[in-house]
Amino acid sequence: MHSWVDGQPASALASLKDRGLAYGDGLFETIAVSAGQPMLLDLHMQRLAQGCSRLAIAADHSLIRSEVLAYAQAMGEGVLKLILTRGDSLRGYSASPEAQPRRILQASPVAAYPEHYASQGVQLFNCATRLAEQPLLAGLKHLNRLEQVIARSEWQDPTYAEGLMRDTSGRVIEGVFSNLFLVCDGMLMTADLQRCGVAGVMRCALLAQAEHLAIPVHITDISLDQLQQADEVFLCNSVYGIWPVRAFTDLSWSVGPLTRKLQGIARTLLDV
Amino acid sequence: MHSWVDGQPASALASLKDRGLAYGDGLFETIAVSAGQPMLLDLHMQRLAQGCSRLAIAADHSLIRSEVLAYAQAMGEGVLKLILTRGDSLRGYSASPEAQPRRILQASPVAAYPEHYASQGVQLFNCATRLAEQPLLAGLKHLNRLEQVIARSEWQDPTYAEGLMRDTSGRVIEGVFSNLFLVCDGMLMTADLQRCGVAGVMRCALLAQAEHLAIPVHITDISLDQLQQADEVFLCNSVYGIWPVRAFTDLSWSVGPLTRKLQGIARTLLDV
Repeated sequence: MHSWVDGQPASALASLKDRGLAYGDGLFETIAVSAGQPMLLDLHMQRLAQGCSRLAIAADHSLIRSEVLAYAQAMGEGVLKLILTRGDSLRGYSASPEAQPRRILQASPVAAYPEHYASQGVQLFNCATRLAEQPLLAGLKHLNRLEQVIARSEWQDPTYAEGLMRDTSGRVIEGVFSNLFLVCDGMLMTADLQRCGVAGVMRCALLAQAEHLAIPVHITDISLDQLQQADEVFLCNSVYGIWPVRAFTDLSWSVGPLTRKLQGIARTLLDV
Repeated sequence: MHSWVDGQPASALASLKDRGLAYGDGLFETIAVSAGQPMLLDLHMQRLAQGCSRLAIAADHSLIRSEVLAYAQAMGEGVLKLILTRGDSLRGYSASPEAQPRRILQASPVAAYPEHYASQGVQLFNCATRLAEQPLLAGLKHLNRLEQVIARSEWQDPTYAEGLMRDTSGRVIEGVFSNLFLVCDGMLMTADLQRCGVAGVMRCALLAQAEHLAIPVHITDISLDQLQQADEVFLCNSVYGIWPVRAFTDLSWSVGPLTRKLQGIARTLLDV
């Protein structure tokens, strides 16, 4: 299916002066599409709006929402990627006040992950690449993703479905393309993302579900020791839902009951 | 003048799947062109090659060099921007081994800075945006430049020609689009760029000139106290050469003799 640029079918970016290309000056969302519906759309639009607010990108969010709905309808099934850039500018970091944010919609097939990732759990690679601490960008799904590119290039062995990333101070933060949760004595733990990391839409949805189910949640700094002591460990994102983690370095975990319960919920959130 | 994409005149990026747009997965060089010649080309090509090596981008450097030479010849005068991306890929951070790096050449007019920036010196804005410490990316002129975009958005007042950026630990690093030098007791000082910052081509050229002139150089961590005690302060880049710094917060400096001497040298490096 053709991509759309600013609402029009296009095979090429309208402009080489786009600040998304020049500086990674923009944001993106990766949205599961099921039966023509963009799943978790409200949360994706919320995160995008927060990103626009923090980066001072003046986008028309109702227009974006309607384009995403129409594009998803045309797609049917798959993964919809929305890239929103600050638009064009002349040379130099300074953005023109007249810059019009650019909307790019792209379709990919449904992600073809092995079924056993979800059923039996995954093995986590131990990434040497650390996340830098930059509070101004922490939590955002922005287009400056070289850390993830470098981290993902560390392993080719398909034994590892994902890689664990720590920050430069050694805190356990997230996967390369997932958020990480721990279950400790019935409590759900996930990393505080004030310094680095991406505040994933599925993470956000699961935190809301936990509140609804009265499962205690602790959003905090997580050490390797705490990871080691966890009863259950799982990854999540808004495309695959939940993958239990069964191994990382010399650590191993069974797939636990809370992981299974939340995995079922995540599945319903991603399917019409 | 039309931009070139992979050696061909183009008004649009060949592909929306370019990883430069998706992740800022690439590098750039901003090259002064005088009388059809790309100035300081060897240093630009050296830095690009180092960046490619560190990011594992397998580019054809002799092809890039010959394209830059031909494009500069066609431009005559101005600023040539070279963007080199890792090329296209499917969704996901993992790069395809078959990805062909993409070369984008763009022309801009000669930068129209007020003449008094060079003659009388500039006033520096005190940026609140701090540079994150990421040794894996430090020194590179990569496409992940949101920190610079945010920093540059902090001031609109044209009284300030540039802004001073510190790292998250408070060290004095560089300008938003310049490197910074101090002169202290006849010694040249500039920031160590092992944790963050861009290793500018003019910085590199000036360090070589200093060695040639037997001016002692200290590449080190720089504190605000050291900046305050400096006898002379100047900025440099490979487009404008050298701007003396005359004021920053409540500090002020005169334009000193070593700054003037190096400014003359920088001018010859940027003009045929």
